[in-house]
Amino acid sequence: MTQPLRVAVIGHAFMGAAHTHAWRTASRFFDLPYTPEVTLLVGRDPERTAAAATRLNIAETSTDFSQAVNREDIDVVDICTPGNTHAEIAVAALEAGKHVLCEKPLANTVAEAEQMTAAAERAAHRGVHSFCGFSYRRAPALALAQQFVAEGRLGQIRHVRAQYLQDWLADADAPLTWRLDKDTAGSGALGDIGAHSIDAAQWVAGQRIEGVSAMLHTFVPTRPLTGDTQGLGGTGSAEAARGAVTVDDAAAFTARFSGGAVGVFEATRFALGRRNANRLEINGSHGSVAFDFERMNELQYFDGREEQAAQGFRTIQVTDAVHPYTDHWWPVGHGLGYGDLFVHQVADVVASLHSRHPAQPDFAEALDVQRVLHAVETSAGENSRYTPVERHQV
Amino acid sequence: MTQPLRVAVIGHAFMGAAHTHAWRTASRFFDLPYTPEVTLLVGRDPERTAAAATRLNIAETSTDFSQAVNREDIDVVDICTPGNTHAEIAVAALEAGKHVLCEKPLANTVAEAEQMTAAAERAAHRGVHSFCGFSYRRAPALALAQQFVAEGRLGQIRHVRAQYLQDWLADADAPLTWRLDKDTAGSGALGDIGAHSIDAAQWVAGQRIEGVSAMLHTFVPTRPLTGDTQGLGGTGSAEAARGAVTVDDAAAFTARFSGGAVGVFEATRFALGRRNANRLEINGSHGSVAFDFERMNELQYFDGREEQAAQGFRTIQVTDAVHPYTDHWWPVGHGLGYGDLFVHQVADVVASLHSRHPAQPDFAEALDVQRVLHAVETSAGENSRYTPVERHQV
Amino acid sequence: MTQPLRVAVIGHAFMGAAHTHAWRTASRFFDLPYTPEVTLLVGRDPERTAAAATRLNIAETSTDFSQAVNREDIDVVDICTPGNTHAEIAVAALEAGKHVLCEKPLANTVAEAEQMTAAAERAAHRGVHSFCGFSYRRAPALALAQQFVAEGRLGQIRHVRAQYLQDWLADADAPLTWRLDKDTAGSGALGDIGAHSIDAAQWVAGQRIEGVSAMLHTFVPTRPLTGDTQGLGGTGSAEAARGAVTVDDAAAFTARFSGGAVGVFEATRFALGRRNANRLEINGSHGSVAFDFERMNELQYFDGREEQAAQGFRTIQVTDAVHPYTDHWWPVGHGLGYGDLFVHQVADVVASLHSRHPAQPDFAEALDVQRVLHAVETSAGENSRYTPVERHQV
Amino acid sequence: MTQPLRVAVIGHAFMGAAHTHAWRTASRFFDLPYTPEVTLLVGRDPERTAAAATRLNIAETSTDFSQAVNREDIDVVDICTPGNTHAEIAVAALEAGKHVLCEKPLANTVAEAEQMTAAAERAAHRGVHSFCGFSYRRAPALALAQQFVAEGRLGQIRHVRAQYLQDWLADADAPLTWRLDKDTAGSGALGDIGAHSIDAAQWVAGQRIEGVSAMLHTFVPTRPLTGDTQGLGGTGSAEAARGAVTVDDAAAFTARFSGGAVGVFEATRFALGRRNANRLEINGSHGSVAFDFERMNELQYFDGREEQAAQGFRTIQVTDAVHPYTDHWWPVGHGLGYGDLFVHQVADVVASLHSRHPAQPDFAEALDVQRVLHAVETSAGENSRYTPVERHQV
Repeated sequence: MTQPLRVAVIGHAFMGAAHTHAWRTASRFFDLPYTPEVTLLVGRDPERTAAAATRLNIAETSTDFSQAVNREDIDVVDICTPGNTHAEIAVAALEAGKHVLCEKPLANTVAEAEQMTAAAERAAHRGVHSFCGFSYRRAPALALAQQFVAEGRLGQIRHVRAQYLQDWLADADAPLTWRLDKDTAGSGALGDIGAHSIDAAQWVAGQRIEGVSAMLHTFVPTRPLTGDTQGLGGTGSAEAARGAVTVDDAAAFTARFSGGAVGVFEATRFALGRRNANRLEINGSHGSVAFDFERMNELQYFDGREEQAAQGFRTIQVTDAVHPYTDHWWPVGHGLGYGDLFVHQVADVVASLHSRHPAQPDFAEALDVQRVLHAVETSAGENSRYTPVERHQV
Repeated sequence: MTQPLRVAVIGHAFMGAAHTHAWRTASRFFDLPYTPEVTLLVGRDPERTAAAATRLNIAETSTDFSQAVNREDIDVVDICTPGNTHAEIAVAALEAGKHVLCEKPLANTVAEAEQMTAAAERAAHRGVHSFCGFSYRRAPALALAQQFVAEGRLGQIRHVRAQYLQDWLADADAPLTWRLDKDTAGSGALGDIGAHSIDAAQWVAGQRIEGVSAMLHTFVPTRPLTGDTQGLGGTGSAEAARGAVTVDDAAAFTARFSGGAVGVFEATRFALGRRNANRLEINGSHGSVAFDFERMNELQYFDGREEQAAQGFRTIQVTDAVHPYTDHWWPVGHGLGYGDLFVHQVADVVASLHSRHPAQPDFAEALDVQRVLHAVETSAGENSRYTPVERHQV
Repeated sequence: MTQPLRVAVIGHAFMGAAHTHAWRTASRFFDLPYTPEVTLLVGRDPERTAAAATRLNIAETSTDFSQAVNREDIDVVDICTPGNTHAEIAVAALEAGKHVLCEKPLANTVAEAEQMTAAAERAAHRGVHSFCGFSYRRAPALALAQQFVAEGRLGQIRHVRAQYLQDWLADADAPLTWRLDKDTAGSGALGDIGAHSIDAAQWVAGQRIEGVSAMLHTFVPTRPLTGDTQGLGGTGSAEAARGAVTVDDAAAFTARFSGGAVGVFEATRFALGRRNANRLEINGSHGSVAFDFERMNELQYFDGREEQAAQGFRTIQVTDAVHPYTDHWWPVGHGLGYGDLFVHQVADVVASLHSRHPAQPDFAEALDVQRVLHAVETSAGENSRYTPVERHQV
Repeated sequence: MTQPLRVAVIGHAFMGAAHTHAWRTASRFFDLPYTPEVTLLVGRDPERTAAAATRLNIAETSTDFSQAVNREDIDVVDICTPGNTHAEIAVAALEAGKHVLCEKPLANTVAEAEQMTAAAERAAHRGVHSFCGFSYRRAPALALAQQFVAEGRLGQIRHVRAQYLQDWLADADAPLTWRLDKDTAGSGALGDIGAHSIDAAQWVAGQRIEGVSAMLHTFVPTRPLTGDTQGLGGTGSAEAARGAVTVDDAAAFTARFSGGAVGVFEATRFALGRRNANRLEINGSHGSVAFDFERMNELQYFDGREEQAAQGFRTIQVTDAVHPYTDHWWPVGHGLGYGDLFVHQVADVVASLHSRHPAQPDFAEALDVQRVLHAVETSAGENSRYTPVERHQV
């Protein structure tokens, strides 16, 4: 086994568990220059944190993230908490010389994201890396799409069509959670899932979004409070059984890309029956690709330069030894699952630690997504008028 | 056989042939109060018209549409010509007491469409009917979607997602045709195929579009001239081998509906590999439907009120005796084709001639689509700002 | 218009209507050396026949097929009656010098089919043609599959996988009909739909079935009698409300082909949810094709010689101008329907009348299918032992 | 953490790695009465074994399986070696009081499988459990199918349709491996993948196969020898560069089930383009289910008792909290992968250790599959005649 790489995971919910599993699994399937070990789990509530650590088999816990930042034996700080806490933890960790992997969206505001990116650039001079967890880039089929575009197979890109459709809020009486509170989550469908679409679209198309015309909408303005959310906008009365939803339920926008493509984006948690339809289709002058995470092991590919009689969208099972990531796993046709994306992310991150070039996306890339999110919110607030994405040096 | 219904078809290209076939076929499969006969074919070029009449087995031809309007023995004038000619022919025919079936889009401008609708309303008082050929309403699967929404199965409608994707212009050297000339065609992808999406979306959702935020784009600004299009913008020089495309190649817009739904629309002829993907998905609080014309005999239906373990989108083969139109044709599982939509359209039109209520959509309905198209163009010309659809009494 | 070709249609149920529609439509879309006209409709019941003739717009009717055979002005006799009547009508018509199009299966027994084929061969010397209505050969996607195999794209054929799945008998109380009576129908799922699979498999694979090992099964041995079926095996008692099903409900067999391929066939009317899943998949050393009539406008094609990273089954929309039959119809992406297959059949038949080579399949080809059916029944009756298909000169 | 459960894994190829990963992962996601630890890895070649142990992070290795059997601190022996070694290892381990998990097929012959089952029954009296690794039973979608049938949703089962299609031998010059050698592998496609179909079919349908009529075929009789396979049938000459394939390339059989269903089975490694299409469809009198491992997170379900207009196969995303296994993983719509099946298998095995009833399938169940395989081989050797499956007390 290679030298250990000690990781502190901050947060132990859905994402914390997925990341911990990935840190532990990556070196069993990938040849890595270091062998990751999750050394420390940090959470707010001591009892829940201890219980999670037991289940996840992590030796030490803390309720204070500064422990992770200050301990000399920690190499990587992995941030899996809500967006409003990212900046503080990430900046402290980077300044302490820890590599940082931060869940997406990078932050709740552009200002925070800029502050984090500035810290990341300072740290980079000292060989410290920053990463943002846009994990869908690690889906072999989406990575293959990116590769096909980069190889020029699609020719000049004209259309980008991105939908991220979920339905877990379709019930108007589903409870209020922190994800529906603007202060904690930053935004709703837009930042939670639309951010994935923006990152994937720019990465696969190889073009930046230059401007957007956007609409945000909240279908269900109040929701039942639960024990965990009684602080969120409720009052003491009986009526107070419901609290205000302060984020968007759905977001839609058109976009213009730097290379001349036009885009249509939609993100919602109200598309009943669409459980996790993270879809991206790109049409170029020579070919097209289409991806839907609900069938994550498949890429649709159309080659318009083939003989006409045999043209058609192909369903590529992206499980072959020649495909991204998949040669490390099972024989062809034996698909991967959602949890495996995080293993790939860890493998990419660890593999890049020796390099001058961190695995992508780093904080600068993630800031760019944040700026698009900001343009979307600005346009939506100004009658959908076309709004350029502002980009300047941090 | 029932009493004859004599039809004059104006235009003999793709649509003229499809309509003629339908007039002839409908009474073989549907019980109709009249038996349609195509008596007269009108076209601009006498030789081509005669050749078409021979192939289509139509006894008489003319190069002057006023013959169709003025002859006493004609009951229906069926207009299958480009949009810039619709108003003149339709108004004359209605005033002469002929029922009019007019291809979509109703006209090239709102002003023309209003003039036609005014004529149709005057004619209606005399028992004369107007119809507009939004033929996709006659697809059994789309009609079933409309029925499911009308029955309340979907609950409150939240999302309308309409794409009409074609690819026949993806080759930048495909020739210039009248469909790319604003004066003749009115608009590009927007009016040609986006109009179908607008009509279908409003009809199926049972809600009107109240306003839009839109983007139009032309990817390929000039195209090779052919014999037929040398009048379109070319000059005498060698460079003149290409003429200007004066319409949109692609249109995209977000929309707000009268009942609270939000919509995302896209129409393009550059989605390589998508041959005729006329798609409509609607998500409500109880269920969802999704249609794609490339699989025209299928409707996807999701019922969110079923027990959770068994929920999923169903692929309904809309070919059963209980489905719209299909009991007149083949046993279940034996699908219909594009040409059959026009047979259904004829059947609906002829069946309604006795009634006070013409088959839908009539000119007033089609004018409404025209107004949405106009709002789209206005918004696209004003930086995509949100633009209400203007509706007033004709 | 070209010279008329006068057709007598025998039978006016589902198939009679489909054929009549096709005779009338073909010359509107295809350039044919003759213009077909259905002159005479023959049926057993005079009232029903007259009603059908009115609906189908056929001028003359008769209850005696010999009228069709003996009239000088009839060119083609088109047999759309149950299998037990085919031999008598076809032989008489051929001997009278009429071209004969006979619905499949050619006959109820090999002996009848041989008699018909002998008559057809005698007639062929006088320039009289025979055809059997295996209409699925006219599906553009299946025809493209055949073309791909014939071009060698699939290499050496190894696997033939044919399923014909319907479900209209899944209800054990669906009534007894003539299709469930061995004397009238010859066999059940085997002859009705399995025959289509056998013909398609041999035609597309380009190989003959050499032997089979088969199983036949009847799930529901008795069914309610209706007015039409009270002659079929019922007695006078109350119990007699049900009559015996004397044919197979399902058939399954493995097969060996002349070129070394192995085959698996299944035909049933009890596959609940499969409405008309006529499926054929062929795997060769270089590629594969797969067809399912429920998506009749699509062909799945896999090319194993492409670069590995981009391999996958393509969904070809077989609606392009370069595909079989489809250039006569609509633009790409506008699919055809079941009824259009019969138009193609008529077009092929009429086009071949000048030629020495009748359109395929002729009676000899259809006899070959009959012989395979016979081997299947023999094997099923002898403990499934492998049974060679017997072929000898007629 | 719960008390440790010490596991020795025998074999370190594809299956050994998959199992080791699963033993390590299961207790992170499932609440188990023991916490598994892989203590020992056994392989034939000391260097390869050591390298695998390093990668898989297993502390101890051995080249002698008897170490695993004899050590007191081993609780479970997990057999991941070729079929010809199963009996010896399993019997020794069971007699030594170790729980045994043995990969499928249980053995290469019925005699061996009977011997193993007898040992398992003796061991069961001492509280020692046996399991066979038919891992597809752990696919949530297939488990849901089994549950639906067991709940009676499908009514009386009529059709079982099982295909297991792979293509990794389609290239006639793919090298000879131990899987193509009868002495080592027992049989070819039949035992390797057909065995999965047989187990799944009997388990989901809830019926035993009573008899079969079968065909086996070898398309490519010789293949190039590699370093690893030079002992397999080659001679010293140049020609000897190829060795004999002594197993079936493809297997096909029809079957009769104990409850009246009829079955069609096919297993092949020559279905070009089908990478790992492990498919099972079952049709009953009330409904149908269909599964394809290439889309392992989906189950197709048809309910024939719904209102007719809305009937259709549903695509259930079997990733919901109410579905088998999936509540331990990710939110709905975030699918699982092949590797996760083994985690489920471990979870089931460990959970059952306290119980009197071992997780299924145990050796007795796996012996039953072996007996069906034997009947298939017998029938194929006797002209495909129908051959009952022989079952008697061990």
